[in-house]
Amino acid sequence: MTSIPTLPADAIPSDDRGFTLGDGLFETLLVEDGAIRFWDEHMQRLAAGCATLGLPTPDPDALAAAGKAAIDDQPGRRALRISVTAGGGGRGLDRPAVPTLRIVATCAPAPAPSGPVSLVTASVRRNERSPASRLKTLAYIDSVLARAEARGAGADEAVMLNTRDEVACAAAANLFWLAEGRLFTPALDCGALDGIMGRRLLEAAERLAIPSVRVRAGPEALVAAEAVLITNSLICVRAALSLDGRVFASSALADRLIAAI
Amino acid sequence: MTSIPTLPADAIPSDDRGFTLGDGLFETLLVEDGAIRFWDEHMQRLAAGCATLGLPTPDPDALAAAGKAAIDDQPGRRALRISVTAGGGGRGLDRPAVPTLRIVATCAPAPAPSGPVSLVTASVRRNERSPASRLKTLAYIDSVLARAEARGAGADEAVMLNTRDEVACAAAANLFWLAEGRLFTPALDCGALDGIMGRRLLEAAERLAIPSVRVRAGPEALVAAEAVLITNSLICVRAALSLDGRVFASSALADRLIAAI
Repeated sequence: MTSIPTLPADAIPSDDRGFTLGDGLFETLLVEDGAIRFWDEHMQRLAAGCATLGLPTPDPDALAAAGKAAIDDQPGRRALRISVTAGGGGRGLDRPAVPTLRIVATCAPAPAPSGPVSLVTASVRRNERSPASRLKTLAYIDSVLARAEARGAGADEAVMLNTRDEVACAAAANLFWLAEGRLFTPALDCGALDGIMGRRLLEAAERLAIPSVRVRAGPEALVAAEAVLITNSLICVRAALSLDGRVFASSALADRLIAAI
Repeated sequence: MTSIPTLPADAIPSDDRGFTLGDGLFETLLVEDGAIRFWDEHMQRLAAGCATLGLPTPDPDALAAAGKAAIDDQPGRRALRISVTAGGGGRGLDRPAVPTLRIVATCAPAPAPSGPVSLVTASVRRNERSPASRLKTLAYIDSVLARAEARGAGADEAVMLNTRDEVACAAAANLFWLAEGRLFTPALDCGALDGIMGRRLLEAAERLAIPSVRVRAGPEALVAAEAVLITNSLICVRAALSLDGRVFASSALADRLIAAI
């Protein structure tokens, strides 16, 4: 296992490949009254992502120590962000022969989710032809641009299509929709993160005997949907109020699902 | 004009959006015996890129001061990297209402280019459906992965196709090819940076009365080419020795072009 120095949060060297190239990953975890939610799931996903990027496996003890050190003693909802970078060095794009990972953990307030969200479909596409599209890498500029488009149109969040014109995800959330009594979500190879809260929504659907399907679907699937939902670790699950100006009617099925997560 | 603090190179705060999201741009400039090459061209491209990303225009005086401060008094070839980030703050993907840019400048040795390069076509695709594909953003993970694929196959550099199966660029260089007495390069909307050394190659072709064309072309164009060339500010122009195992014969036209830049 590679040795992993944990740095003070405010001292990232300028040659860190996370900074220079987005060469790394992050996880955002919900902390409620000092308790970290779904630590194991997040760390498993982080380790799997490192393998996909060709990086060494982060030391679980170092991750735990960094997370623990970053959590402050504030009550209420906090967002713990753990970033793992390819570390320093290398020449240009080439990593050193044996990268030494760097862990950076920070904690910030996480406002409580409040009501349904308005969505707008962004013009920036998700690149499903890169493994990075299925990971939370430090190279998140496409999501930043998609969100900015949504904000510019007066909406809360962006729906991202991939380059095959299929629905992929929201800029910072997984995307689900209800139609004909079933729960749909994009297949991971559409360019979607395997979301931890998304998995819980699928489990909730199973408990309620609502069939769920991972699909490749175009944007017309959202237009025809009874309800659209987005999930992530901080917002949990939220219904869409509108998509590209179309307002959704209330959905008893969506309400049952949201209540069951 | 937004105020831009210049930080010591080794003190990047952990909330910097360049670090957390790849929300920023960089330029790599060649320095020869203390003289920066093509400063104005690089800074014009940087300012245009900031506009594309919706960021304020960097203060030219602050950029010049950062660049000057970073250059050491070492003789020979040096690489000056100037990064401009969206600065700190904001919540998640959303930038602050008025971002305060951060400038980080560093200088490192730039080994002299040495001979022709071997190329391998990567499976990771360039996302021409995002404006970031035409910019040097801090979100360079797709290029990192493409280069790693090439290295893994024993090659020096990767050729990247875009999601429409067209030739886009090399992982860290612009791509050109010679065929039927003409010089070809991918159109910018294929997902290519408007390269400063690439422009000089096009100018050299014009001086030699070699017609040049920006095209949308599939990988078969490279297979049929007399010669393939790559350009960037540090390597200048280099011929491809091979592509996916096919070895190129020597090309008098390529030699003339390389000598004329």
